[in-house]
Amino acid sequence: MTRPDHFEIDFEPVGKRVDVPAGSDLLDAARQAGIGLASVCGGEGTCGRCRVVIMNGKVSEPVDADRRFLSQLEINAGHRLACRVHVHSDVKVHVPKASLVTDQRLQVGGLARALTVENTIKACAVETDPPTLRDLRSDLGRVTDAIESAYGLRHLAVEPSVIRQLSPTARTHNWNLTAFIHGREIVGFAAPARRPVGFAVDLGTTKIAGFLVDLETGAELAAGGVMNPQISYGEDVISRLVYAGRGPAAAAEIRGVVIEGLNGLVATLCEQAGIERTEVAEACIVGNTAMHHLLLGLPTQQLSVAPFVAAASDAVDVRARDLGLELAPGAYVHVPPCIGGFVGADHVAMILASDLDKGDRVAVGVDIGTNTEIALCKPGLAYLTSASCASGPAFEGAHIRDGMRAASGAIEAVRITADGPQIKTIGDAPAVGICGSGIVDAIAALHGAGLLNDRGRLQKDAPGLRMGTQGPEYPLALAPNTGTGRDVVITQSDVNEIQLAKGAIQAGLEILLESTGTPAEAVDEMIVAGAFGSFLNLESALDIGLLPRLPRARYAQVGNAAGVGAKALLLSLKERTRAQKIASRTSYIELTTYPGFQKRFALSMWFPAAHRRVREDA
Amino acid sequence: MTRPDHFEIDFEPVGKRVDVPAGSDLLDAARQAGIGLASVCGGEGTCGRCRVVIMNGKVSEPVDADRRFLSQLEINAGHRLACRVHVHSDVKVHVPKASLVTDQRLQVGGLARALTVENTIKACAVETDPPTLRDLRSDLGRVTDAIESAYGLRHLAVEPSVIRQLSPTARTHNWNLTAFIHGREIVGFAAPARRPVGFAVDLGTTKIAGFLVDLETGAELAAGGVMNPQISYGEDVISRLVYAGRGPAAAAEIRGVVIEGLNGLVATLCEQAGIERTEVAEACIVGNTAMHHLLLGLPTQQLSVAPFVAAASDAVDVRARDLGLELAPGAYVHVPPCIGGFVGADHVAMILASDLDKGDRVAVGVDIGTNTEIALCKPGLAYLTSASCASGPAFEGAHIRDGMRAASGAIEAVRITADGPQIKTIGDAPAVGICGSGIVDAIAALHGAGLLNDRGRLQKDAPGLRMGTQGPEYPLALAPNTGTGRDVVITQSDVNEIQLAKGAIQAGLEILLESTGTPAEAVDEMIVAGAFGSFLNLESALDIGLLPRLPRARYAQVGNAAGVGAKALLLSLKERTRAQKIASRTSYIELTTYPGFQKRFALSMWFPAAHRRVREDA
Repeated sequence: MTRPDHFEIDFEPVGKRVDVPAGSDLLDAARQAGIGLASVCGGEGTCGRCRVVIMNGKVSEPVDADRRFLSQLEINAGHRLACRVHVHSDVKVHVPKASLVTDQRLQVGGLARALTVENTIKACAVETDPPTLRDLRSDLGRVTDAIESAYGLRHLAVEPSVIRQLSPTARTHNWNLTAFIHGREIVGFAAPARRPVGFAVDLGTTKIAGFLVDLETGAELAAGGVMNPQISYGEDVISRLVYAGRGPAAAAEIRGVVIEGLNGLVATLCEQAGIERTEVAEACIVGNTAMHHLLLGLPTQQLSVAPFVAAASDAVDVRARDLGLELAPGAYVHVPPCIGGFVGADHVAMILASDLDKGDRVAVGVDIGTNTEIALCKPGLAYLTSASCASGPAFEGAHIRDGMRAASGAIEAVRITADGPQIKTIGDAPAVGICGSGIVDAIAALHGAGLLNDRGRLQKDAPGLRMGTQGPEYPLALAPNTGTGRDVVITQSDVNEIQLAKGAIQAGLEILLESTGTPAEAVDEMIVAGAFGSFLNLESALDIGLLPRLPRARYAQVGNAAGVGAKALLLSLKERTRAQKIASRTSYIELTTYPGFQKRFALSMWFPAAHRRVREDA
Repeated sequence: MTRPDHFEIDFEPVGKRVDVPAGSDLLDAARQAGIGLASVCGGEGTCGRCRVVIMNGKVSEPVDADRRFLSQLEINAGHRLACRVHVHSDVKVHVPKASLVTDQRLQVGGLARALTVENTIKACAVETDPPTLRDLRSDLGRVTDAIESAYGLRHLAVEPSVIRQLSPTARTHNWNLTAFIHGREIVGFAAPARRPVGFAVDLGTTKIAGFLVDLETGAELAAGGVMNPQISYGEDVISRLVYAGRGPAAAAEIRGVVIEGLNGLVATLCEQAGIERTEVAEACIVGNTAMHHLLLGLPTQQLSVAPFVAAASDAVDVRARDLGLELAPGAYVHVPPCIGGFVGADHVAMILASDLDKGDRVAVGVDIGTNTEIALCKPGLAYLTSASCASGPAFEGAHIRDGMRAASGAIEAVRITADGPQIKTIGDAPAVGICGSGIVDAIAALHGAGLLNDRGRLQKDAPGLRMGTQGPEYPLALAPNTGTGRDVVITQSDVNEIQLAKGAIQAGLEILLESTGTPAEAVDEMIVAGAFGSFLNLESALDIGLLPRLPRARYAQVGNAAGVGAKALLLSLKERTRAQKIASRTSYIELTTYPGFQKRFALSMWFPAAHRRVREDA
């Protein structure tokens, strides 16, 4: 039964129903129903991803945003942007498959790196006698006495939540237990002879990668990834910060979904590894400054407007329970320090994992994502230098007409031959869209073939190009050979989006090199981290000028270095001290206020002429 | 609108309505409605206090328990015990005033004692500049930098909840603040030039006394008391532990009401003192072992059955927030250690406040309550010795036919003259019942006048006595001069209840003296603490044998010594160390297993013949 002033929204074909107040928009309704409706802009009507079809019911009139993304024919047939539709009656909505958030190919692996274990958590075997009328020590007293006599540990702190676990656990296992000790505190109890397990997390803007490791040996017990469910609040960090800034309820809501995601991930990993969730005695979570603030529930207002100041950036150890994470009752979450701006603990972890702080060579680390962080080290420089580029989510398929994440059916590689385009899709499925590596490939190929000029204009009269509704476009796959029944194309607007993204990164890199007096050719090692960076065709990236043209051997595509760093930080207090040093010794260049940034950014959007000439010569 | 399978219960004359599932009992319904319906037994049908009148609606048939407390006439008129009535339709209920929990005369004062302040909380004045594009330090970073340069304090820990408070507070006060520091941690921020305030609590089984003190000077800013709202779950600790043991929901419920009570109390006191609740930077709460477990949410199962083992008894510092207490966001609650059995931190606080641990004289401290704790110290003994007597709530008016707490209209003093009884009521109001000190007076007078023999039998044919429905009884006040329209009487059963209570205390005291080789007359000081102990007519207490006959000058009625101890512990880390020593150096005698306890208990129920003879001689 629907509450008064509420309407029932029925989402098909998933068959989920939800009651919402009159006037709600359909994107909010879909969030409430737990439907992963794609939304890059977070409901601002600017990305055109949350397309749905109204099957029946009364809704608000189409608006400009609808007309921007939908043809009149589509609008007449009931197509609309969910975020722009307000409901005035019960409504039945069809959600096309293309509007759903798809599972992405997640990069959870990374640098194979020997991890040092420096006991953060100690497991103590406890054996004691049950209470009798002659021995009335408290439950906790008899256990701490046993630990003291076996291990010499005294005055251990214990939280009520852990004592709550002790009394029944001790009786179940007849006073034969394992105690997990963190510093001078007991954080949990388990059955006898159990080992302490840790949970390392790379909390990305788009995806979350998690690892369970044995805290005594460092061995990986399970690994896996999920999408960051905050995506439905906007794909870029600013949209999410703005959402959180709406008020305490919104902040709690957007925090809640990521905690739910983390709880789901750790539950899955524990099942894989055959352990109890209460045996996870510590966690370490790295993320950029925005993810860090949204995770810890820190104020975001001041972070979402200039001068973009963090509420706090030092390392913090916080109870898992306080965050809503269900691990051992007293477990802590270690959140390593952020550097500055949006350069967060994930970049600290990446620097640590790739030894950029050793300063034994000229090296640059680039972690390409919705925000791209870059760090540079150089022998003789006391400090690392870092910068953060607002590259946007174009490399993850957003803002691209047929863009999508790296899921089945995504075009991931493109060549242009005399016979036209040759494409390769993920899983060799019929093409449904194009993912980041495919876009870079396509643009490099279009430019190399002379179909795209150095300034980024598609050459309308060139072979293979055609006029679309919004200017020239280049079809990569034609219906009916596609999985969607629509052509998959590269539009002029797509090229411009990629120019913005690559221009931001290229300008950032150049400024970083310049400000440290480093010519590009002096870079001994160029480390490209992150999921997109791992699947990227390096040659195409050099061709479009995204990365500087250096000998191939100087490049290393290292995968999820931040995840590896998170594991290292989980396992070792020494590495935590090192992270603290990295954070305090890494200077941060605010690019937007760097002299001449705007001009350099504008120039960086061009494609390098050399590349085209090289191909023309060939 | 009532939910399906739910009925609406309308409580009059208060006019509160509540929906409850079909078959619920009315005591539960009243609790849900927030009505303080009296219940001594916690809903077992044995105290007869939760009397209500069914005005309309379908309810279950009267049962034996109803017949035990109500006449057939009353039953016919709809009178019933709320805890025995199950609802089968919407029901309208009248709640007589006499069935409501009344406000008690609360003893919050205590020993006037100079309190030492050893800075547990430090207040730091913070003055810093706002962030600019040239100074991008995090909010927290700039504040900790300012504290470091002004006070030399480094590496202060800060919880996310405190950072959450910082960002808006700093901007409101233009980066001019007060930081409250606990050890090496910032626990809260306030406006400039504010002082840190502490909240000391004596959490009794029946009442809660609270004090706000200035943590820098020790000055008391406000004091007040409320009833412990757990009373509606049973007046004795075992009933409450049993209720909490029903399952996690019940445990959370009974814990929730006391937290709500504490939040209400601190809010009232803060208003009195003109301070913000977020300026309360630390709290200290003392209570017996059961109150301690129910407050901290510790397991109670093992504490409610022999051998009555505590889950934990050491001192613990726990976040106020973790308990649900709304103080400064990072504030801690210090919960001092328990001794053993039900002898808890309140007794430690009492020992500390009365310097019983100094061992410079033979002294006994007795804290009379629902549980009575006794401690003995003696020069030459390395340890204090303590015992806990299950004296029950009879001295607080429970289990006494016309018993009530020390509220307006309670008979608090009784004399018997040739003309019959002379009574004094609290507030000189018409008598509505009799409170603890009145009962002791009445029984001493009856015994002294020969109306009650040494074994505790009312002498049926004696003048002034009459036969009631359940044996001989002595009327103290007759309708229509009473406030209830019913006579106020002392029954044979009342005498027996007092015999049980005073016998338990007397036997405990005797065993404590005997086991330490101390003749009663060797006691230099007899300290009587607690609310009942303060209002008690000492002569009557000696007459009935509740306390040993010592020269009057050796007695000290000290009021709420536990509350004074709680304040001392709030204000000084040295006193906390002393409390730890008291707890670990106080041995605990389990009376129920002491040789010959049962026989001595039986004998202690008698009244001393000497007293009667003294009066007869006079």
